[in-house]
Amino acid sequence: MTVPSTALQLRSLMRSTGELEVSLLSVPVAEPAADEVLVRIQATPINPSDLGLLFGAADLGTLQAAGTAERPVLMARIPDKAMKAMAGRADQSLPVGNEGAGLVVKAGSSPAAQALLGKTVAIIGGAMYAQYRCIAANQCLPLPADATAADGASCFVNPLTALGMVETMKREGHSALVHTAAASNLGQMLNRICLKDGIALVNIVRKSEQAALLREQGAKHVCSTASPTFTDELTDALAETGATIAFDAIGGGKLAGQILSCMEAAINRNAKEYSRYGSAVHKQVYLYGMLDTAPTEIVRNFGMAWGIGGWLLFPFLQKIGPAAGQQLRERVAAELKTTFASHYTRTVSLAEALTPQAVAEYAQRATGSKFLIDPSRG
Amino acid sequence: MTVPSTALQLRSLMRSTGELEVSLLSVPVAEPAADEVLVRIQATPINPSDLGLLFGAADLGTLQAAGTAERPVLMARIPDKAMKAMAGRADQSLPVGNEGAGLVVKAGSSPAAQALLGKTVAIIGGAMYAQYRCIAANQCLPLPADATAADGASCFVNPLTALGMVETMKREGHSALVHTAAASNLGQMLNRICLKDGIALVNIVRKSEQAALLREQGAKHVCSTASPTFTDELTDALAETGATIAFDAIGGGKLAGQILSCMEAAINRNAKEYSRYGSAVHKQVYLYGMLDTAPTEIVRNFGMAWGIGGWLLFPFLQKIGPAAGQQLRERVAAELKTTFASHYTRTVSLAEALTPQAVAEYAQRATGSKFLIDPSRG
Repeated sequence: MTVPSTALQLRSLMRSTGELEVSLLSVPVAEPAADEVLVRIQATPINPSDLGLLFGAADLGTLQAAGTAERPVLMARIPDKAMKAMAGRADQSLPVGNEGAGLVVKAGSSPAAQALLGKTVAIIGGAMYAQYRCIAANQCLPLPADATAADGASCFVNPLTALGMVETMKREGHSALVHTAAASNLGQMLNRICLKDGIALVNIVRKSEQAALLREQGAKHVCSTASPTFTDELTDALAETGATIAFDAIGGGKLAGQILSCMEAAINRNAKEYSRYGSAVHKQVYLYGMLDTAPTEIVRNFGMAWGIGGWLLFPFLQKIGPAAGQQLRERVAAELKTTFASHYTRTVSLAEALTPQAVAEYAQRATGSKFLIDPSRG
Repeated sequence: MTVPSTALQLRSLMRSTGELEVSLLSVPVAEPAADEVLVRIQATPINPSDLGLLFGAADLGTLQAAGTAERPVLMARIPDKAMKAMAGRADQSLPVGNEGAGLVVKAGSSPAAQALLGKTVAIIGGAMYAQYRCIAANQCLPLPADATAADGASCFVNPLTALGMVETMKREGHSALVHTAAASNLGQMLNRICLKDGIALVNIVRKSEQAALLREQGAKHVCSTASPTFTDELTDALAETGATIAFDAIGGGKLAGQILSCMEAAINRNAKEYSRYGSAVHKQVYLYGMLDTAPTEIVRNFGMAWGIGGWLLFPFLQKIGPAAGQQLRERVAAELKTTFASHYTRTVSLAEALTPQAVAEYAQRATGSKFLIDPSRG
């Protein structure tokens, strides 16, 4: 097939005057160097981790559509108080999209690059919301013969995040774990990993239908924050599993603190004597997401052996080193269509992703609603 | 001198019916075993860490005096919602007092115990709010010849906590630190350690007179939360010192989160490019106290490389092991009357400590107000 000299790439621009502008730019298609390949992107997911770069702190209530149907432009206001935190990216037109998959349509002269020509590969590295992406050959994960680009589009972020949680649990000396927003694509994946590996997982969801969904998928411990007896149910599940580490996608509000309180209550059920400083068992909650950007409110009634902190995939991978990271990636490839399968609500073109209707759907970060962009669609 | 067969010991009792009762009990004076000594306590401080055991979650607004002048009893109500957290100690009469110092008046038959007879020693281990305390000889720290019991009464908790903060800073890879409630006895001690060791310290205080006090003592960086430009001043001090770890005695409210925000702002002053996840520099706040029992409110505008957690002296000492702990103790003994000197607002008898007037003063945990109990006073 013929590769054009220019192609579309999605860009997010935050002006220092307080306006967000998301648009499709026509940019030159790069010529791959010896060790590189050019990938025609066919599937790239909108992960929660992409939304931050896409819309930053813009107030989506002020969203306005401009441009044409082929070249839509989205505009929104950034609240003044958020501009300080955004200063580092002001007036820079940034490409977006953490990961994706597609067809290698051109390859550099090196044998490694040439070997990928005509293959469908999964890639990570940003700027995936584009018709073409030039990337180092050694960064490509060739998909199994029976896998489509859509099958491999979410090969990295969610699978490695879920495996990273289990790995962190083990490395920090815990034997069971808690996950919030547990009915998400990531949560369902974590549930499959834990079922397969025999690890006890306490799933926290926000609605009873999400609890039912997870139970249908074999989850044993599911607690809904909508239940009037939520903290009692959570304490029971924690006492039964012994989970003392949690990964929280929500971040804001009281949930992280409630998890620590319930962990302490579960531990104290079996305590033999009073300790004024609480139990000596370390309880940890990692916030890896920001579904709720409100302040985190911690009622400290769980002793002194506790921690809350940020958790991110890339620093985690750096910490465990390339060999351990490669092991995780190999497991993902081997179980791509089972344990690590992703499901999408809808597949849209680049232009369709920039309609207020689509944004209203995918930017609300509702559990179970996940979009796939196919930039090869007209 | 003659040792009586019974002597007074302060006890705190929380009844499951919701009443707190603090009183002086007459208990048998123990006969030291071969490896033990009997110490006549002459000085024992009321540390913030003692107040928790002494009064628990009782509402001191309901405090009532009963008993006699020699045998006073204090009563207070425990709010219903606090009873759950207190369940572990309900209906147990608990002795109080972490540390103290006094004269060894009786010793067991072992040479180590006999060698301490007639010496003034500092001891730690609870139950110090008493006229006599029987304790293992190897737990006694003999004071230098020119030191009184009052000089050595606070030999452990504050000195080892302050040294533990510096040690934690080093072990976790930071090069400067932040301390809140910095005009406290502990804070002044930490300031002296940092000045002596050439470590940059950012002191956070609540009042301008506290700032002046610390500056008089040589502190270079002092920020008052009372200043309208507090966060700007704190950011400047953090940028200048490079401090990325803080020890917070306050716990509740917004301060811990503000420290993380200002650390991030200080780091980003020198950042070269935008990172959507914030700086990669790990920022840590340890809460080691609870001067404010309100919820901790964290506005997460400081990226993902951060942690907040509890910090306690005894788990810290356990973590570093006995050899490293002994080094810290030797430094305390060597600098007892300089770096590690404590100052007291007032010295009271056991009975005087149980008057509502005294409680009103020492239980407000006001910076600079610290009581010493001398149980040998009539």
